[in-house]
Amino acid sequence: MINVGIIGGSGYTGVELARILCNHPEVKITVATSRQFAGQPLARLFPNLKNRLDIVFENSSPEQLCEKADFFFAAVPHKTAMNIVPDLLSAGKKVVDLSADFRIKDIATYEEWYQPHTSSYLLDEAVYGLPEIHRGAIVKSSLVANPGCYPTSIILGLAPLLKAGAIDPHSIIADSKSGTSGAGRAANVGTLFCEIHDGFRPYKVGRSHRHTPEIEQELGSVAGEKITISFTPHLLPISRGILSTVYATLSPDFNRSIISELYEEMYSTQPFIRLLDEDDFPATQYVRGSNFCDISFKIDTATNRIIVMTAIDNLVKGAAGQAVQNMNLMCGYEEVTGLEIVPLFP
Amino acid sequence: MINVGIIGGSGYTGVELARILCNHPEVKITVATSRQFAGQPLARLFPNLKNRLDIVFENSSPEQLCEKADFFFAAVPHKTAMNIVPDLLSAGKKVVDLSADFRIKDIATYEEWYQPHTSSYLLDEAVYGLPEIHRGAIVKSSLVANPGCYPTSIILGLAPLLKAGAIDPHSIIADSKSGTSGAGRAANVGTLFCEIHDGFRPYKVGRSHRHTPEIEQELGSVAGEKITISFTPHLLPISRGILSTVYATLSPDFNRSIISELYEEMYSTQPFIRLLDEDDFPATQYVRGSNFCDISFKIDTATNRIIVMTAIDNLVKGAAGQAVQNMNLMCGYEEVTGLEIVPLFP
Amino acid sequence: MINVGIIGGSGYTGVELARILCNHPEVKITVATSRQFAGQPLARLFPNLKNRLDIVFENSSPEQLCEKADFFFAAVPHKTAMNIVPDLLSAGKKVVDLSADFRIKDIATYEEWYQPHTSSYLLDEAVYGLPEIHRGAIVKSSLVANPGCYPTSIILGLAPLLKAGAIDPHSIIADSKSGTSGAGRAANVGTLFCEIHDGFRPYKVGRSHRHTPEIEQELGSVAGEKITISFTPHLLPISRGILSTVYATLSPDFNRSIISELYEEMYSTQPFIRLLDEDDFPATQYVRGSNFCDISFKIDTATNRIIVMTAIDNLVKGAAGQAVQNMNLMCGYEEVTGLEIVPLFP
Amino acid sequence: MINVGIIGGSGYTGVELARILCNHPEVKITVATSRQFAGQPLARLFPNLKNRLDIVFENSSPEQLCEKADFFFAAVPHKTAMNIVPDLLSAGKKVVDLSADFRIKDIATYEEWYQPHTSSYLLDEAVYGLPEIHRGAIVKSSLVANPGCYPTSIILGLAPLLKAGAIDPHSIIADSKSGTSGAGRAANVGTLFCEIHDGFRPYKVGRSHRHTPEIEQELGSVAGEKITISFTPHLLPISRGILSTVYATLSPDFNRSIISELYEEMYSTQPFIRLLDEDDFPATQYVRGSNFCDISFKIDTATNRIIVMTAIDNLVKGAAGQAVQNMNLMCGYEEVTGLEIVPLFP
Repeated sequence: MINVGIIGGSGYTGVELARILCNHPEVKITVATSRQFAGQPLARLFPNLKNRLDIVFENSSPEQLCEKADFFFAAVPHKTAMNIVPDLLSAGKKVVDLSADFRIKDIATYEEWYQPHTSSYLLDEAVYGLPEIHRGAIVKSSLVANPGCYPTSIILGLAPLLKAGAIDPHSIIADSKSGTSGAGRAANVGTLFCEIHDGFRPYKVGRSHRHTPEIEQELGSVAGEKITISFTPHLLPISRGILSTVYATLSPDFNRSIISELYEEMYSTQPFIRLLDEDDFPATQYVRGSNFCDISFKIDTATNRIIVMTAIDNLVKGAAGQAVQNMNLMCGYEEVTGLEIVPLFP
Repeated sequence: MINVGIIGGSGYTGVELARILCNHPEVKITVATSRQFAGQPLARLFPNLKNRLDIVFENSSPEQLCEKADFFFAAVPHKTAMNIVPDLLSAGKKVVDLSADFRIKDIATYEEWYQPHTSSYLLDEAVYGLPEIHRGAIVKSSLVANPGCYPTSIILGLAPLLKAGAIDPHSIIADSKSGTSGAGRAANVGTLFCEIHDGFRPYKVGRSHRHTPEIEQELGSVAGEKITISFTPHLLPISRGILSTVYATLSPDFNRSIISELYEEMYSTQPFIRLLDEDDFPATQYVRGSNFCDISFKIDTATNRIIVMTAIDNLVKGAAGQAVQNMNLMCGYEEVTGLEIVPLFP
Repeated sequence: MINVGIIGGSGYTGVELARILCNHPEVKITVATSRQFAGQPLARLFPNLKNRLDIVFENSSPEQLCEKADFFFAAVPHKTAMNIVPDLLSAGKKVVDLSADFRIKDIATYEEWYQPHTSSYLLDEAVYGLPEIHRGAIVKSSLVANPGCYPTSIILGLAPLLKAGAIDPHSIIADSKSGTSGAGRAANVGTLFCEIHDGFRPYKVGRSHRHTPEIEQELGSVAGEKITISFTPHLLPISRGILSTVYATLSPDFNRSIISELYEEMYSTQPFIRLLDEDDFPATQYVRGSNFCDISFKIDTATNRIIVMTAIDNLVKGAAGQAVQNMNLMCGYEEVTGLEIVPLFP
Repeated sequence: MINVGIIGGSGYTGVELARILCNHPEVKITVATSRQFAGQPLARLFPNLKNRLDIVFENSSPEQLCEKADFFFAAVPHKTAMNIVPDLLSAGKKVVDLSADFRIKDIATYEEWYQPHTSSYLLDEAVYGLPEIHRGAIVKSSLVANPGCYPTSIILGLAPLLKAGAIDPHSIIADSKSGTSGAGRAANVGTLFCEIHDGFRPYKVGRSHRHTPEIEQELGSVAGEKITISFTPHLLPISRGILSTVYATLSPDFNRSIISELYEEMYSTQPFIRLLDEDDFPATQYVRGSNFCDISFKIDTATNRIIVMTAIDNLVKGAAGQAVQNMNLMCGYEEVTGLEIVPLFP
């Protein structure tokens, strides 16, 4: 049993952490912070939590936090995270940071896409929290940088291919579509119901989305060479879910059966990856609320391309669920504890 | 630990029973039937179940069923239910029937609204499965008639008022709005995405919906007199959820504080009823996927009316969740076992 | 041909006025104002207007406005409207005001529900712009107070009944459901996509919505006596549309055929009222984008109640379309000019 | 003024043709056919048409049809179309066929993807009805094969690039997302509300969608060489709209300004193409209900790729609107007659 704190609990990731941790048998949520809503019950902001989690938002200093819990989820925006995390680590606490602050290993790249880094000395220590790839390091780590939602969906789809040299790493095009919860809970005309409902659009097209360097770092690390991709995010009129359709040119001598084996080899023992049959394509509605990543691929011999499709719930495997999966590993619990959620359909 | 069978597992209630029972620590699903899909894995029809429930639909006779499980959920249409249930009971099995076949105590009323009843001798034995009202009888029963979704939302809202004589029983108007999963999974032009999406409509207006006699029976039983209501169902462009707005004329000498006490008295120890504050109104999105019924009321002194509002997930408290709640009571498990689900929001 | 100005063009009513007026053969939009977006093309804010309306938002004084147009639609919030309208009228312009400022005839009632009125001397002159009821006065007026969306849906449904004494005026309960565009385009957490989507809720329950006195004023005027109603608004996860389900107790000696005649008598020559058959109920998706009000009623003899159902597009018959209908009458055009839009389905 | 018939009027394309033609000043709809609904008013099936189009579905022979109208829209499935069209043409009528039957010029290709062709002698005469590319031929034709919805969105996006050799024709990847009305109005579990709502998925991945050869034919024709593409369709939880995101490798010496000129040159005088600024991306909600095709492109210098994005309303520019545009050209009306619809937003 562990006392857990949620730093920055008033966004959609915060309420999702609360939902998942409420049903985690080894966890007690002892503190949740919000500057804006300090003093208010979480259940007032998020009435779904009523009678399940009866705590109140606090505006606590790092010292106060450290007295209340031993494990922390930092669900604050980047920049804020890098200012809080060092104090928690110094006090001997373990942290999963859901911001981007500790994901990018190359400080120059981080500062190009974000802002000056004030805790860059922690970058070496931080582990990129994709358990399917970095499980060994996560288990030993005190600071895990929880992956972005788009990166999770794309990296998991391509890792077996890049590891085996099955695709041309310069041919990768990732066309991704995300539910609107990914845009957060800030008051914003662009994400009003009437602006999103019954519509669909791309955004940040052409190497302008900040998840780009994160995806390229991890793909490059798996492939063993520098990788530059095309990545286009789109906004779906759904609350939850990311579907990525990823295109790449197949290397010579790879066919469906060889590639199926690559996926099996890497993922058949992974508890949250579901490999689908050839003509079963992933759909966001079948992973809703769960920590699953569904993966399927199709080879188009006429163009010699492979199309890899993945679906996750952006708030679960793309954020809070993966964070809890990392916590389980960092704390020595079963990896699946509290995460054996059956997707909600319909 | 108990072996459980789902009879008629290919509809939305079936997949929801499967979702909930998968996480029930005392249950093993040993059989699920479907004439149409016999031989197919449940997870092919409902990919959300993949890696969580790996059984195959069967087309079993009652005898075969009885060999495979000790407790059954009948999620088949009315008329079909009345033909299967007797065999299960004779074999000493316990049954929660989710059809309407054993809900209506008065045989003439049943036959007026449905069709001739072939197992009417069981009506006395069957208990109306609303635990908040009939818990004692449910515990001792082998045949529970699981309430309809609309009736659950309306009866729970009015019971404390009628029991105390706080409203004029002839003044009740229930304006209810349901998500589309309530219409089932049959191929039907009327429930195609394009017919429902971005729209809203009433249907079966003016004493023509079959839930009417069921609501009146239970309200009358609580009130101790015959009750006739106005009930108007509407179809919402959402998957799950029922919101009922119920109007009634207040009896003399009842005010907010007295009525609050009535609700507290009847519901404060009920695990799945959440009483909301005066200006917190229920919303379907805050009960999504959970077994909660959220209730709130408002008194309008200008018209001397009370407006009671309730929200449930029609597939959970309105169907599969309540069925499992009944099973827990019938089998001696904790009432909340497997049902402490936090609503999924957003 | 007339030059028309839209004052306050950056909300959903503004863009809807623009959409309708673009296709009006007698109108040229010469100015649209917005303090916040002055200098920006309307088509930047509302890309649907691109290549159809190529003007730029201005921040003009009343004097400047008067030079640019002869007819104005004021689509600014109440309070702002009452400050602008007098100047326009003084300059001899005609105005349809879409705010609440000139709808309530009784100054005390207005000030109780809104705020002090600074132009109350205009209240006598202003005509409540429901053409089906006040056509004669509208034709002669220079200041029309365009009705609220909920009032339009409720008043049109009840007028024939109240005029003929067919219902008990003290028994009226209006349960209304509105699309989210009714909440406007301000940045607001409560109307974010993720808060509204796949959900449904009541709000301002129990005599607290500001449309209440407006509805009661007009119903009372038709009935010839003071009327107090129960009115409950709800928020639908759709962009456009209001569906009102209205309950009332039938007076003795009124039956379906008599009541059908009442509706026919009052509405059969009204171009935007569609009376539906007994079992055809209105649906918001069948009036989408049009100026129609669909009406249907059902009598429940068991309770002696009539249920009247109406559907409108809240942005058209509930706002911009009705405003243009009023303009047509005030300017001597055919009432239907520019409004013969076929609803968009699906 | 022309008498027009709609053959196969009971699907979403049929009702959309009716919507558009109702407001076309040169057209009178004199007949609409449906085998299944013969004898029923169109407005019963599609209540949006009530009071706008008061005709009844007929089940007429070609001879009967020819007596009633001079111009026909065939909105029947492929195969059915090829059996009806010859009779209409023989009788001197003009036809826009919305099926696939006359789109594919190569008979072997048609028969590989569809079925044996019984009227292949008409293929030479039929003109592919994309006015932006084949206007001259359309004007002179009596048989226009109206393009598919996906092809329209992709061909319009790429034509200027392929014509100028600006991209490598072997590098084309079209990732397309369509609203559900594209799947038609047949009763089908797969397109029920609950299956589609709040979800997203690819389908017919990897050279299996029948629009593939049609797209390749037209792209090849523009480019002057055989083209093989990757095309992946996806299903959006919206009623209307297609958004295509198309990737291609840029040829040497082409940059943003040169490419902007290519688009301007080809499209600046086209009434239904809207070219957006560099950082204004198309969105389906801004073309809803209109005949516009919005186009935008972005160059990613890091990968040397161009990303072209297009948005159309699949029922308008992707079907009924384009059909009317073709009719206008074939009949000598202004190309935009009846089509100057402002998109409905929100």
